[in-house]
Amino acid sequence: MSHIPAVEIITIGDELLYGQVIDTNSAWMGQELGKIGLRIRQISSVSDKAEEIVRALDEARQRAQVVLMTGGLGPTKDDLTKHVLARYFGSELELYEPSLRDVEAIFARFNRPMLEVNRQQAYLPKACTPLRNTVGTAPGMWFDDGGVVFVSMPGVPFEMKHLMTTHVLPKLQEYFRVPPIEHAVLQTIGQGESFLAEQIADWEAQLPANMKLAYLPYLGGVRLRLTATDDGQPNLRERLEAQLPPLRALIGPYLFAEGEVPLEAALGAMLKERGLTMGTAESCTGGAIAHKLTGVAGSSAYFLGSIVAYANDVKVKQLGVQPTTLETHGAVSEETVRQMAEGARRHLGVDVAVATSGIAGPGGGSEEKPVGTFWLAYADAHQTVARKITFNRGRQLNIEFITTAALNLVRQHLPTVS
Amino acid sequence: MSHIPAVEIITIGDELLYGQVIDTNSAWMGQELGKIGLRIRQISSVSDKAEEIVRALDEARQRAQVVLMTGGLGPTKDDLTKHVLARYFGSELELYEPSLRDVEAIFARFNRPMLEVNRQQAYLPKACTPLRNTVGTAPGMWFDDGGVVFVSMPGVPFEMKHLMTTHVLPKLQEYFRVPPIEHAVLQTIGQGESFLAEQIADWEAQLPANMKLAYLPYLGGVRLRLTATDDGQPNLRERLEAQLPPLRALIGPYLFAEGEVPLEAALGAMLKERGLTMGTAESCTGGAIAHKLTGVAGSSAYFLGSIVAYANDVKVKQLGVQPTTLETHGAVSEETVRQMAEGARRHLGVDVAVATSGIAGPGGGSEEKPVGTFWLAYADAHQTVARKITFNRGRQLNIEFITTAALNLVRQHLPTVS
Repeated sequence: MSHIPAVEIITIGDELLYGQVIDTNSAWMGQELGKIGLRIRQISSVSDKAEEIVRALDEARQRAQVVLMTGGLGPTKDDLTKHVLARYFGSELELYEPSLRDVEAIFARFNRPMLEVNRQQAYLPKACTPLRNTVGTAPGMWFDDGGVVFVSMPGVPFEMKHLMTTHVLPKLQEYFRVPPIEHAVLQTIGQGESFLAEQIADWEAQLPANMKLAYLPYLGGVRLRLTATDDGQPNLRERLEAQLPPLRALIGPYLFAEGEVPLEAALGAMLKERGLTMGTAESCTGGAIAHKLTGVAGSSAYFLGSIVAYANDVKVKQLGVQPTTLETHGAVSEETVRQMAEGARRHLGVDVAVATSGIAGPGGGSEEKPVGTFWLAYADAHQTVARKITFNRGRQLNIEFITTAALNLVRQHLPTVS
Repeated sequence: MSHIPAVEIITIGDELLYGQVIDTNSAWMGQELGKIGLRIRQISSVSDKAEEIVRALDEARQRAQVVLMTGGLGPTKDDLTKHVLARYFGSELELYEPSLRDVEAIFARFNRPMLEVNRQQAYLPKACTPLRNTVGTAPGMWFDDGGVVFVSMPGVPFEMKHLMTTHVLPKLQEYFRVPPIEHAVLQTIGQGESFLAEQIADWEAQLPANMKLAYLPYLGGVRLRLTATDDGQPNLRERLEAQLPPLRALIGPYLFAEGEVPLEAALGAMLKERGLTMGTAESCTGGAIAHKLTGVAGSSAYFLGSIVAYANDVKVKQLGVQPTTLETHGAVSEETVRQMAEGARRHLGVDVAVATSGIAGPGGGSEEKPVGTFWLAYADAHQTVARKITFNRGRQLNIEFITTAALNLVRQHLPTVS
């Protein structure tokens, strides 16, 4: 049998219906299933009541050949999923020794006493193929019921991801003999979807029938994902890769990474490779650029520090901005951000620095400088570059957008050697 | 008719199934519906194909008396919802003048030319009660089909929220004569759910039958929500409020705000009220505390700046930490964070400062100071207070937890006058 099964996701838990928890599992599962060429037909969130779970299972099997469930596998009385599935498949629970050992290992690692309720988690319906969970106490379960596959996983995101990656995705590919599929992701920044589409229209038009480009926009840029599906011919990966060099050339200035690499990590890798250190001088972004950069593990190798100069006094004393500049041009001006960036280099002792000043809103705007007016500057040993940006989609998005623009400004001007 | 209808949510759009967008709308709707005493029975995400939408509507009306839809109302060919609903309710589209004027006003505000496709957005099925949207181009639609209410709203979160708040929630309360319900939210920080539950067990036990307390934990604290449902007696709000003074007394040290106020905003209000200015000196948090504080509109009134001292050199030069302290005790030590906090006060010219230094991981740990070791210090004109925290749930959560702990440390020690 080789065909592409339809997939449904059922997320189980009152906390989803009450809005106490946002369901991020489904989106992650949708992405990962998409990578192996499977499509989700429906996602349903239901209460952790037996009759609701059974109804959802009955409905899903009418529409799909794969039903993936998350949630309801914890050790407490609220967690019904396993018992509901045992009854649904007419199967008794029995102890699964390898999962008991996994549970024991988890408790040993955290040096906590194991309770009887946790021991009970290793009892699974006889009808299932157990999926061992080495990062949590609830094993997964795989049921094959007349050609429809049902999989039950814990709702804790990192446990679900572990089970999906280790067991579920490979088993689905094997079971359904899912045709091969290959992807390449090119991350761009600084241009919108329609501009990029125009730039690469001719390249896109010449793609073979089994290759398709997806535009995945985010705040500040677009991820491009090229997908090659099976055409019965060999070397799918190689043929996909062969399409990339002309694409790279066309989007060169906007391309910052290949694969799932965020901008701050791509910039960090450039700094590390070139042996450069960096710092920031932030007014309107209020530390957001530093926060992004230091979110990357190992960033202390190139990120030395920041001066968040929200008040003008701090701009003068900690960054050496001239009081006359602030008086003449104001804090939100090309002159001020240039001095901020140059001051950050001197005061923090870094090779390159980026500075921001602007009006994030909702207050603080004027006729001359309305909310959404931003100045950015980049400085290294050879040059200082300033840029004005106008963007206003509310305080939070403004800060996020300018943070991304500042990281991109550094990426664009970073010298190749220190 | 006065009863509590079951609600279903249907979110429409391939981008949800492919995992390109995380569905945050449903959680928000679940929370808001909960506040007026309505419960969601199921949430379903389906493709923007006509047959999938119709199937979802047919299924939902079997289970619920209210079906809330989001998505598929944009101006492009992909956006089918309105046409599907017109056919589903056997109703033709006609121009709804007030919505046309709303659309025109939106384009006038952004100074952009209005296209024919946008004009088309003001055509609505005759069978619906239009719900005017003054913040976007897609009006909402309310259908009453034999006692089942169907509502269609745009998927853009702020447009959906606008329609829910302005039209849908009040109309549902009126239509179903939903019994009155009252809530009070008390925000606590610094103690877990089980500790709080023990502290307030006696108070909770004496609550009248129509009042219930919910524990809503988040990273670092717990939101307590007291809900009073209708018992046929008058003055429900007053009786709810009357329960609060003893609760406030029991959780006093952990209570930082009432209502939906985040910690950084609560701290900001305290600083403003007391006429105090604040700054931060951040090593392991890398600017995250400053970023949180400056996310609050108007924070420039009390937040002056930060020194993010990731490198030891920056700790010495910008904060005045003694090199001998760093040599003797290391960067992650009580001595260092005390000097960082005191240095931040001097160098930034602020009344109060908070400092952090620790090992966020995954690398950088040692036997003596493993990943998850953090030191925090608070300083004002009268005292410096240091605190050690051990917490390790991965780099991102570690940074988030320590950021919250640092804000709380300031809240706990802030002097009542400057």
